Amino acid sequence: MEKLQALLSERFQIVFSDSSLLDTAFTHTSYANEHRLLKISHNERLEFLGDAVLQLVISEYLYKEHPNRPEGDLSKFRSMIVREESLAGFSRDCQFDHFIKLGKGEEKSGGRDRDTILGDLFEAFLGALLLDQGVEAVKRFIYQVMIPKVETGQFSQVIDYKTRLQELLQVHGDVEIQYQVVSESGPAHAKEFEVEVFVNGQTMGHGHGRSKKLAEQEAARNAVETRNDGPCI
Amino acid sequence: MEKLQALLSERFQIVFSDSSLLDTAFTHTSYANEHRLLKISHNERLEFLGDAVLQLVISEYLYKEHPNRPEGDLSKFRSMIVREESLAGFSRDCQFDHFIKLGKGEEKSGGRDRDTILGDLFEAFLGALLLDQGVEAVKRFIYQVMIPKVETGQFSQVIDYKTRLQELLQVHGDVEIQYQVVSESGPAHAKEFEVEVFVNGQTMGHGHGRSKKLAEQEAARNAVETRNDGPCI
Repeated sequence: MEKLQALLSERFQIVFSDSSLLDTAFTHTSYANEHRLLKISHNERLEFLGDAVLQLVISEYLYKEHPNRPEGDLSKFRSMIVREESLAGFSRDCQFDHFIKLGKGEEKSGGRDRDTILGDLFEAFLGALLLDQGVEAVKRFIYQVMIPKVETGQFSQVIDYKTRLQELLQVHGDVEIQYQVVSESGPAHAKEFEVEVFVNGQTMGHGHGRSKKLAEQEAARNAVETRNDGPCI
Repeated sequence: MEKLQALLSERFQIVFSDSSLLDTAFTHTSYANEHRLLKISHNERLEFLGDAVLQLVISEYLYKEHPNRPEGDLSKFRSMIVREESLAGFSRDCQFDHFIKLGKGEEKSGGRDRDTILGDLFEAFLGALLLDQGVEAVKRFIYQVMIPKVETGQFSQVIDYKTRLQELLQVHGDVEIQYQVVSESGPAHAKEFEVEVFVNGQTMGHGHGRSKKLAEQEAARNAVETRNDGPCI
């Protein structure tokens, strides 16, 4: 547990006042069940709390980041970000998998690398952080660990406007869709791309984004939406 | 909208800095659709945000209020509190139904008293409050409007231990289950009841609570849990 505390302090500047919360967050039910007589708490209740604070922080981020997207898009986007596999990935990024206490059977059967266990662990950690230091501390941690990855666009596939555009256009037979970066600005850590989408050589939409992928999605979205309002292609 | 602002200020000491958020929260999609050319925002995006902050505040409350309940119970309890009909009731309690802007068709067909619309409105209001004044202000409002009702036990039926106890015992034929208040203390606004449950005249469990109903549920839970550990009745 000391190594975990050192990791949290060095990497995230987080020092728990009540280290028993941290202990509980890193205790899987299988470990608590094996030591039933010691009445050790496991992390399921903290996971319940962590899930709720995670949903809130991500919802507020998405609301502000996408001022023109309808609720349905925000909802899909959020569910991609907070799904088990994503959260397990963040647990691994933070090296949390090294510190979880598992029962012997769970350890033997590979529980230390299981997405359900690591996803729940990530949420339980957020729950413990909420109780120890409040919602702003959780927000800082999520903005440090999760949001940079969200901003690379790796969770945006859920609303795949490039596919949607292609589906819409191919109803009318074969079309050629091309995406072209028309400008690239900003320093390396805060690049801004501008992309145009051409259909059979004609400009159909443009978009901006922090990665080429995001800008292409925005351009495709622009084309899909323009097309819905305007005349048939 | 001025009347609404007066109501919020008088009854809840809430004054919005950005009244356009309040305006959006009280605009149903049907109204925005009828005035499409004016490009009025409706409350669906705020509802998305409000739902998330509501879940967090209620989760944290339940976590602290029920230190010994497993995650599954907290989860069921929460879903009872935040379900549509409950939230619609809170909207009515706050007189929010008087202020929502509806399209003509929706108004005619009784939308002003529809649970879906009023439940969503309540969440949208919480979302607007979150953006305007932060999570602590939302928490204060929820503790003022919702928690006192939660504490009367009207949402606890979900984990109905009285029914569960009866089901468990009646497997062995007819039994007589009686609940008896053994003490009642505290001032009128903060009463504390103590209840014992008797099965065929024998004490089987006891419980405390802020209402008779809650104390009975606790007594039944105590009996159910003791029974699971102990010998068969």
